[in-house]
Amino acid sequence: MNVNGKAYRSIWLASDGWSVEVIDQTRLPHEFVAARLTSLEEAAEAIRTMVVRGAPLIGATAAYGLCLALREDPSDDSLRAAAGRLIDTRPTAVNLTWAVRRVQDAVMPLPEGQRIEAAYECAAEICDEDVRTNQAIGRHGLTLLRDHWEHRRQHDRLNILTHCNAGWLATVDWGTALAPVYLAHDHGMPVHVWVDETRPRNQGASLTAWELLQHGISHTVIVDNAGGHLMQRNLVDCCLVGTDRTTAAGDVCNKIGTYLKALAARDNNVPFYVALPGSTIDWSIGKGTAGIEIEQRDVAEVTGIAGLTARGEVERIQLGPAASPAANYAFDITPAHLVTSFITERGICPAGREGLASLYPEHAGVDVGEAR
Amino acid sequence: MNVNGKAYRSIWLASDGWSVEVIDQTRLPHEFVAARLTSLEEAAEAIRTMVVRGAPLIGATAAYGLCLALREDPSDDSLRAAAGRLIDTRPTAVNLTWAVRRVQDAVMPLPEGQRIEAAYECAAEICDEDVRTNQAIGRHGLTLLRDHWEHRRQHDRLNILTHCNAGWLATVDWGTALAPVYLAHDHGMPVHVWVDETRPRNQGASLTAWELLQHGISHTVIVDNAGGHLMQRNLVDCCLVGTDRTTAAGDVCNKIGTYLKALAARDNNVPFYVALPGSTIDWSIGKGTAGIEIEQRDVAEVTGIAGLTARGEVERIQLGPAASPAANYAFDITPAHLVTSFITERGICPAGREGLASLYPEHAGVDVGEAR
Repeated sequence: MNVNGKAYRSIWLASDGWSVEVIDQTRLPHEFVAARLTSLEEAAEAIRTMVVRGAPLIGATAAYGLCLALREDPSDDSLRAAAGRLIDTRPTAVNLTWAVRRVQDAVMPLPEGQRIEAAYECAAEICDEDVRTNQAIGRHGLTLLRDHWEHRRQHDRLNILTHCNAGWLATVDWGTALAPVYLAHDHGMPVHVWVDETRPRNQGASLTAWELLQHGISHTVIVDNAGGHLMQRNLVDCCLVGTDRTTAAGDVCNKIGTYLKALAARDNNVPFYVALPGSTIDWSIGKGTAGIEIEQRDVAEVTGIAGLTARGEVERIQLGPAASPAANYAFDITPAHLVTSFITERGICPAGREGLASLYPEHAGVDVGEAR
Repeated sequence: MNVNGKAYRSIWLASDGWSVEVIDQTRLPHEFVAARLTSLEEAAEAIRTMVVRGAPLIGATAAYGLCLALREDPSDDSLRAAAGRLIDTRPTAVNLTWAVRRVQDAVMPLPEGQRIEAAYECAAEICDEDVRTNQAIGRHGLTLLRDHWEHRRQHDRLNILTHCNAGWLATVDWGTALAPVYLAHDHGMPVHVWVDETRPRNQGASLTAWELLQHGISHTVIVDNAGGHLMQRNLVDCCLVGTDRTTAAGDVCNKIGTYLKALAARDNNVPFYVALPGSTIDWSIGKGTAGIEIEQRDVAEVTGIAGLTARGEVERIQLGPAASPAANYAFDITPAHLVTSFITERGICPAGREGLASLYPEHAGVDVGEAR
């Protein structure tokens, strides 16, 4: 997508042909700078410290992380250790494991001398595929937004509420939840996005708002507390969010607070859509969500926040009393019955086991675990 | 309540016997300082800029504001103008109008020469009454907490979730929602409070956490997004919040985001209690909530936030991109059917018209408006 009028992806191969560059998302929206990753360790740290974040982008970065590891040592042991190191960086997003396994599977059968090239090919393929996937999600989602436009609640705009950032910065390009929004805008529909700021890390206020600004899409930043009120007042036509992991039964693990918005949507008859590539579905969890580890992050993310001072410097401030303890759960789970539909690269389906099975029949048989 | 071991109220008459001192709540938790109010204008500005906030404390401050106005000019015209000025400072809390009218009614029949003294008497009465009211709310609420303790979800503590600040800083002393918590703690019950930070103004992280710290009550600050997840995980025994205005039908207007927590409470069978003095009931609204004006405040509260820098200075930072618009709705409405019970100074009642009428029969007949 565009940054100051120039087309970017969120991750790309540097001009040296082997090191990897990503947009440093911890410095947005106040600074737009790229970070260069030259080793497994740098790739793993970029994921852990959220220089890159968003389930699909984490997967793409991990894939390149394996390439960098193989440059250092192409042996089986190195590959296994690197995979473990990368998967351990973030516990919740399932794309991370998916992408790592895909590269592993591609290179493991090869002699060591051919592994590096094959890994780079596979990583590039994961990235290109992510872009095509998101474009397809955009096209399918657009049909929904067109329906909503026919029955819009405000005369002059279609109001979409989103939580966190499931835009192009969360993916390689286009985004998942925001792909239909970008497409709708490009087709001339006057979309307006309510952007949840998404505490504690404020990915909404920092990333989603920045993305939408760059693309010229009308939006309004709100605190995470406000969405219910907006829905009560008929100011939301639909909610559209991403997901970090979706179970085979359709339960959605996404950024903390998603569940609260889904409850408000149901209470006010506002459709609640989750956009996802098939790679975020965890087919191993057939029933229940106890198998999903909810990441708990540093409480400093809750007790403080960074922003731009009047002097134009980015500084971190402490919010409450220093002696007050805090907790920082990063994700919550929205049960499938609160979700209206999934928007996938293969089309739209009801949120639930049957819906997913109809779109991904090749996986449906895998669901033999807790579901029986 | 205690501040560094010394007993305080949130508002008191200065040693000169006429000017009014309040805790400057815009400077908590980083600085504990009193602000002195010497004129109607200063009292009105203290309310408008939220040096004082919380429905009961706003009422008490407005009562003293009228005293200060009468010192300047005890005429009928002055009294009416002062009442109007004060009521216009904040549109949502109904105690403001209630307290102003009470002082007005007390002094209007008197000759100008006796008005000042009578107004001070009435203001002091409003304050003392507020303290007694909150103590009674505390006693009634304690019986509920004792029941919950018998059926607690965690072995070693009773988990109470609260939103915003309905503690002693929101009132003259003791608080509404926090009064039962203080009492329970004083009776030896191991209460633990989940403190919603309560964006945009962070009254939870800044005021509730500070109050609880001063009183030695176990608590954990969380982002506003987290409460639903905690309830899903059985980590909340009950929710306990205050209210800025409650309709005769039991609909609760409170700090933005309250509604989302009430939805999560219902979805997880967690009791949701609203603590209120009778003065926050708006008997003129019998049905619907369209009559409640939802205050929209400066969007700078959403786009930025203040806190303590590493240098120990309180500074304001900008969060998202400067060019992104924002919206700042201060309150939302939780329908009565999502509230388990009201805890009032007269006892506990089901949330709804009949419950309130049973506790306040003298007002029940007033409900002839939209309800028919």
